[in-house]
Amino acid sequence: MAGSPLIDELRATLGTAAVLTDPDLLRGYQRDEADLCESAPPSVVVRPRTTAEVVEVVRLAAAYGVPVIPQGARTGLAGGANSIEGALVLATTAMDRILEIDRVNRIAVLQPGVVNATLAAEVARHGLRYPPDPGSWESSTIGGNVSTNAGGMCCVKYGVTTEYVLGLEVVLASGEVLRTGRRTAKGVAGYDLTRLFVGSEGTLGVITEITVSLRPAPEESLTMVAVFPSIATAGAAVAEISAQGLSPSLLELLDQTHLRAIEAYRPMGLRTDARALLLAAVDTGSRAPADLARLAAACTATGADEVFTATDPVEAAALLQARRLAHPAMERFAAEAFPAGNGGLFLDDVAVPRSRLAALLDGIERIAAEEEVLIGVVGHAGDGNMHPLIVVDRADPVSMARGQRAFDAIMELALALGGTCTGEHGVGLLKRDWLAREIGPVGVRVHHAIKAALDPTGLFNPGKVI
Amino acid sequence: MAGSPLIDELRATLGTAAVLTDPDLLRGYQRDEADLCESAPPSVVVRPRTTAEVVEVVRLAAAYGVPVIPQGARTGLAGGANSIEGALVLATTAMDRILEIDRVNRIAVLQPGVVNATLAAEVARHGLRYPPDPGSWESSTIGGNVSTNAGGMCCVKYGVTTEYVLGLEVVLASGEVLRTGRRTAKGVAGYDLTRLFVGSEGTLGVITEITVSLRPAPEESLTMVAVFPSIATAGAAVAEISAQGLSPSLLELLDQTHLRAIEAYRPMGLRTDARALLLAAVDTGSRAPADLARLAAACTATGADEVFTATDPVEAAALLQARRLAHPAMERFAAEAFPAGNGGLFLDDVAVPRSRLAALLDGIERIAAEEEVLIGVVGHAGDGNMHPLIVVDRADPVSMARGQRAFDAIMELALALGGTCTGEHGVGLLKRDWLAREIGPVGVRVHHAIKAALDPTGLFNPGKVI
Repeated sequence: MAGSPLIDELRATLGTAAVLTDPDLLRGYQRDEADLCESAPPSVVVRPRTTAEVVEVVRLAAAYGVPVIPQGARTGLAGGANSIEGALVLATTAMDRILEIDRVNRIAVLQPGVVNATLAAEVARHGLRYPPDPGSWESSTIGGNVSTNAGGMCCVKYGVTTEYVLGLEVVLASGEVLRTGRRTAKGVAGYDLTRLFVGSEGTLGVITEITVSLRPAPEESLTMVAVFPSIATAGAAVAEISAQGLSPSLLELLDQTHLRAIEAYRPMGLRTDARALLLAAVDTGSRAPADLARLAAACTATGADEVFTATDPVEAAALLQARRLAHPAMERFAAEAFPAGNGGLFLDDVAVPRSRLAALLDGIERIAAEEEVLIGVVGHAGDGNMHPLIVVDRADPVSMARGQRAFDAIMELALALGGTCTGEHGVGLLKRDWLAREIGPVGVRVHHAIKAALDPTGLFNPGKVI
Repeated sequence: MAGSPLIDELRATLGTAAVLTDPDLLRGYQRDEADLCESAPPSVVVRPRTTAEVVEVVRLAAAYGVPVIPQGARTGLAGGANSIEGALVLATTAMDRILEIDRVNRIAVLQPGVVNATLAAEVARHGLRYPPDPGSWESSTIGGNVSTNAGGMCCVKYGVTTEYVLGLEVVLASGEVLRTGRRTAKGVAGYDLTRLFVGSEGTLGVITEITVSLRPAPEESLTMVAVFPSIATAGAAVAEISAQGLSPSLLELLDQTHLRAIEAYRPMGLRTDARALLLAAVDTGSRAPADLARLAAACTATGADEVFTATDPVEAAALLQARRLAHPAMERFAAEAFPAGNGGLFLDDVAVPRSRLAALLDGIERIAAEEEVLIGVVGHAGDGNMHPLIVVDRADPVSMARGQRAFDAIMELALALGGTCTGEHGVGLLKRDWLAREIGPVGVRVHHAIKAALDPTGLFNPGKVI
């Protein structure tokens, strides 16, 4: 397509530097970080800088009948940003300006390509906080976070991305610019279009501006760790903490596989003999020590072998860092688990009601035994949102088939426990079939009706979600 | 329509007692509590008890081409539940069962006709709290609260209804039953259909079951009152409180007109010489006295004449009660302000960014002077959400015209200040034109596209919102 009329028009509109057609470059925009998902290099990648440029790109793509794949930093884990043959990838990463930070009203207005960590750092300079903190926060964009309704570790107390999106500017398939939402704390003027676009994974429009609400600067927190003799007892502790109405600002679970992988990746003296570990924090204030004591007591009552509290912020930061290393550590562990570095991971993302967490964890152990695969478990226990990581040998079809069966069995289990097939990673390509199963035929029909209402020709991100 | 085939079929399906056709009864279902909105008695009112019955009603109405007006307790303030000539009113008030309260997962599942106060009391017995507390909470239904995305006094810290709705069951215009959302703390499986229905004012479907999230039981709170020499200084105090990152659990404003009306309605020793009063609370915990002191200091710094804190829960409850009496007190005040009890109120509901609250309050004083009408102001100052009440003489066309002009001028001012024409009451019939102005032609087109996708024949609540 390098010399096509569409490319010529794109170059005339955006300038040559913002239109990529070099095959080596195109391959770099082919896919996100999901395994198990198909992708193909796009025909062209554009990097607009303004809403007006996005409008022109969408109009040209529509006129030429070329599908548009909106992309952030491609840190997604469900293939939602993967390209298909012949597509135009619309990378929002050059739209990276923070347009406004309003301290009194506690809002920020930004372009979609602003990196989460950049926003967090900028608002911190104003004594404010943008809480959502997905694992990818140092590289993922707010546009991508909004499109997937990203979660993170803070969500157990502070909620996911959608709780912080007040308004959006979106370029529709028609090329029209829609503004949704508001700058006010409250507002009920019309349908909640803002939250319809949040989590829609680029299938309904291109988000070109985002208004987020902010919180006052975070309080310091107190951190504790509880060591459990089984993963199910750790799950039971989470249910007990929830039943007691405690509100930790962090409640994460790591199983033994993860503890060993992290310790091998970066030795930090973790209790690798522990079968499971809960990492919890409470925001300070004079009541924090009492809250932490109640958390500790709940863990002890449900069977923790040992509970210890971080004595200083350095120790607490180290514990958090260990949690943040879980994914890269498991990636290395998996790669080295099979010959020639062929080991890989199937990363799942299910959520169940907190009361069913122990049953989920039990069931995952059973599935691992049945399929004879190793499954590490890590996740946001306080939300009932777990990330089972299935270790497979990419060179061995039998191992891959077992991994796939385990992956499916975990989602089946989560649904049977009243849960969801995706707690925070999204549907993308990876879980389209499971979405249909979760929401049923009426739900699928309504999804298609809304997609058709907003994008009648299927211009945006075809084949994703539904 | 009393002997029509539709009535016969409804009676055969629901039983005679659930199908009302007596003209006197029908008039009771004609309208909500909004002024200035048209209405007409329906042809029939049905009171189904189950989702299956709602499905039958919707199918019959669709087959006969009769519009369906979903109704809760008719406490709305925008005409959103008003009937039209020939319509079928589907009253959800007989669907009043709480189906489940789950303490560990902190959720409740209920039919739409459950009254807000009933739910609040039931979950309190389990040590839990359902925060949204609209002024109508003692009589309004959760179904109505969800349909209007109702707010209340707690929202400044705890958010509005939509923050608490995890999932819905909805009967669509096709008669199909859609289930949205989840029972888990997190979930991103597909479009956020739940929040599309929240606040859609009965135009997209009939909500037949609601899953709400709950919070741990409320903490005690400390309450304070600050008295201001002008309404603008009270507004400035709100901006200062916000700028300092304080998080009151309540922050309400009452102007002198309201203080006098309340004191006349129920004498309680209010400072009726005050031009404006801010009522604030903070949740307890050991840090509460310090937080209250910072709130008080912010009020003093911005010009409060006097700040006093409630010394005991009885005094605090009395102050809250005064705030809750604002609306009935103003209704009596208005009625008595003109001969023959012909006085009435135009109740507005605008929200602006907190930093612009003082400008809004200044502007309302100017509008009152220009139109020579009395405008009382009360509202959720911490959210920038004000309820100006314009006192009019219903018997005097000149007074009514002035009131209407003031009503419109206030919305125009709110939009000019970056606000919204409705902070929590909804659009209904009252603010359709203003919604179109606020969201613009692209927003209107998207609203129509979504309405057409879900309700292609316009069966549900025709003429409302858009």
